Amino acid sequence: MSFLPVDEQLAYLKKGFAEIIREEDLKDRLTAAAKAGQPIRVKAGFDPTAPDLHLGHTVLLRKMKHFQDLGHTVIFLIGDATGLIGDPTGRNTLRPPMTRDDINANAETYKAQVFKILDPAKTEVRFNYDWLGAMRYEDIIRLTSKYTVARILERDDFSKRYAAGTPISVHELLYPLAQGYDSVALECDVELGGTDQKFNLLVGRELQRDYGQPPQIVATVPLLEGLDGVEKMSKSKGNYVGINEEPAVMVKKLMTISDDLMWRYFELLTDLTIPQINELKNSGQNPRDIKLDLARRIVADFHPAAEAQAARDQWLHDVSQGQAPEDLPLTVAADPRLKQCLLQTGLAPSGSEADRLIKAGAVSVDQAVVKSPSQKLEPGEHILRAGKKWARVSV
Amino acid sequence: MSFLPVDEQLAYLKKGFAEIIREEDLKDRLTAAAKAGQPIRVKAGFDPTAPDLHLGHTVLLRKMKHFQDLGHTVIFLIGDATGLIGDPTGRNTLRPPMTRDDINANAETYKAQVFKILDPAKTEVRFNYDWLGAMRYEDIIRLTSKYTVARILERDDFSKRYAAGTPISVHELLYPLAQGYDSVALECDVELGGTDQKFNLLVGRELQRDYGQPPQIVATVPLLEGLDGVEKMSKSKGNYVGINEEPAVMVKKLMTISDDLMWRYFELLTDLTIPQINELKNSGQNPRDIKLDLARRIVADFHPAAEAQAARDQWLHDVSQGQAPEDLPLTVAADPRLKQCLLQTGLAPSGSEADRLIKAGAVSVDQAVVKSPSQKLEPGEHILRAGKKWARVSV
Repeated sequence: MSFLPVDEQLAYLKKGFAEIIREEDLKDRLTAAAKAGQPIRVKAGFDPTAPDLHLGHTVLLRKMKHFQDLGHTVIFLIGDATGLIGDPTGRNTLRPPMTRDDINANAETYKAQVFKILDPAKTEVRFNYDWLGAMRYEDIIRLTSKYTVARILERDDFSKRYAAGTPISVHELLYPLAQGYDSVALECDVELGGTDQKFNLLVGRELQRDYGQPPQIVATVPLLEGLDGVEKMSKSKGNYVGINEEPAVMVKKLMTISDDLMWRYFELLTDLTIPQINELKNSGQNPRDIKLDLARRIVADFHPAAEAQAARDQWLHDVSQGQAPEDLPLTVAADPRLKQCLLQTGLAPSGSEADRLIKAGAVSVDQAVVKSPSQKLEPGEHILRAGKKWARVSV
Repeated sequence: MSFLPVDEQLAYLKKGFAEIIREEDLKDRLTAAAKAGQPIRVKAGFDPTAPDLHLGHTVLLRKMKHFQDLGHTVIFLIGDATGLIGDPTGRNTLRPPMTRDDINANAETYKAQVFKILDPAKTEVRFNYDWLGAMRYEDIIRLTSKYTVARILERDDFSKRYAAGTPISVHELLYPLAQGYDSVALECDVELGGTDQKFNLLVGRELQRDYGQPPQIVATVPLLEGLDGVEKMSKSKGNYVGINEEPAVMVKKLMTISDDLMWRYFELLTDLTIPQINELKNSGQNPRDIKLDLARRIVADFHPAAEAQAARDQWLHDVSQGQAPEDLPLTVAADPRLKQCLLQTGLAPSGSEADRLIKAGAVSVDQAVVKSPSQKLEPGEHILRAGKKWARVSV
């Protein structure tokens, strides 16, 4: 098996990671893999609960795909054993045990979603109950002897809870160790995860050393901001775009993001390279049109390209319907009252029709509905609308 | 099955415990047992490493025996599974795994020793690997979810180590939980242990509640002071009496204890009741003779009564040999030199015999060997000894 030159691989892989521990190690590992003609093994772990993925999850999936693009092996690990623990719960409870049927059903749902991004042929789907569930008492004692309580309590959420006197159950300490042991069992070269998983990923790195394996490279992706540009994207915050949503819905949601966030999404949610993104930034194109292109690209990851394009076109059409034409002639109002303006600009053919339209709420001034025919317009320029007709008046 | 009245049982059991949590619970449990005609189940756990018991261990064994005396069931638990952890190690290492053959061999050694005190017919010998070793991953997760890190770190040795920054491995936190789970698996009514085990015993009490069982009564025995009366009895301190030592050695060691410690040993190492011990205290007997009686009683727990008596008698004989007779006549020395004193008092028949005895180290002045024939005795009264002959001289 042959690979791209290591520097090219690195350049492709580095985009979009928050941190790589350590980049030199990744370079060495890629070099050794190229020499041996063997792909490296890249793991990312996922919760076994019923998945309903949104774009926030795809940041990680896209990085997994990038390793696949370069010919490497990706392990999509479903944490059915670690999922029994829950991390971090802060609630000191066990998750209800899931049946094997539940887990398998969830795995199928996962596959249906993640294989929109990942290449099934280059993906190992694994379940960590296969090795964690097979551990005997003495295996668990051995594993837990490798790590001190103090070091685990250094984990940010644990240290805060411990300091605050919020209960931490002993089984929660086992979570990072169990997850770390996954890397031992799978002999991972690289583990990917969100920045919030950094501690757990580093535990895997150390446990591999303890078990006589070369320590994995840990690479974290940032947590994607939701549509509001502030909070992490999540269903509960309502600031998300689900990957199973209709193309039109996705475009409509994506078109609400700020211009700043647009560039962030380009970086984390498309395959464009940083130079390509910079080129777009300097292209002088209308930001709205660039945003439309982003939306189309993102939708096309989860829907046929033609549907993505159609959704984009439809959005543009709908928006045009709601906006004043750009070349409206200016009418100088003879009378500032709304009804007279409608008559003067021809938006209403008669006084009674003008009254009817106004009372029906079909008339707006500067996009605000006005329901009083005798309302006087303020001095200045205004856009009037009655039904689908537009006019521009100066008072 | 019928039992003594509960109050009589309680009076018998209470002697020699440092603490009972809680005595009312023990009373209730004994009452219920009596009603049901069922013995209660009393557990004590022991380390699986090769045992070489000394009197310090027998304080606990005697309390186990007292429950047996009253018709109850005693579980002699060999911690082959908890022994893999080690408690408290302070050294953050696993004990080397023992083979089943090692463990069985140690169990036989244990039995040979403890059945000198315990009644084999009323003793269940159990190994906790039977249930701990059978635990699966999810069982351990469930068990460890029952207890918080903070509460385990409250254990005195842990809190000191944690505060001092001395490493505590995660597996060490599992020790109290594993030991506590033993009480669940065995459905214990009472658990006995040293005062240093109180924390672990209380964990068992709470876990039983979590697993839907009535919580066990926890009863702790004090740690026996060694022969020095200060430090805890232990082999490494050299202040111990091994239960496999020869009767003569045991008596000799026991006769070195202070009078205060003698009464402590009566309480913790004999079946005499508190009233009987008080009677002895007020009997006006020579403390040495009471101590000899104590030694004889203790030896008789591990050797035939006739051998214990013989060892006592031999000690008395040897000591008489080593002490000056009380009615020695006083000789006023004509010459203060040792050799002349020996001749004058008749301890040596001739000058050459006096020289020989002195050079052979067979001559002492006031119990100190003197090897110079020309040594002058200090002014005053002295006890001379040559071989088995004694004399009293005034210089």
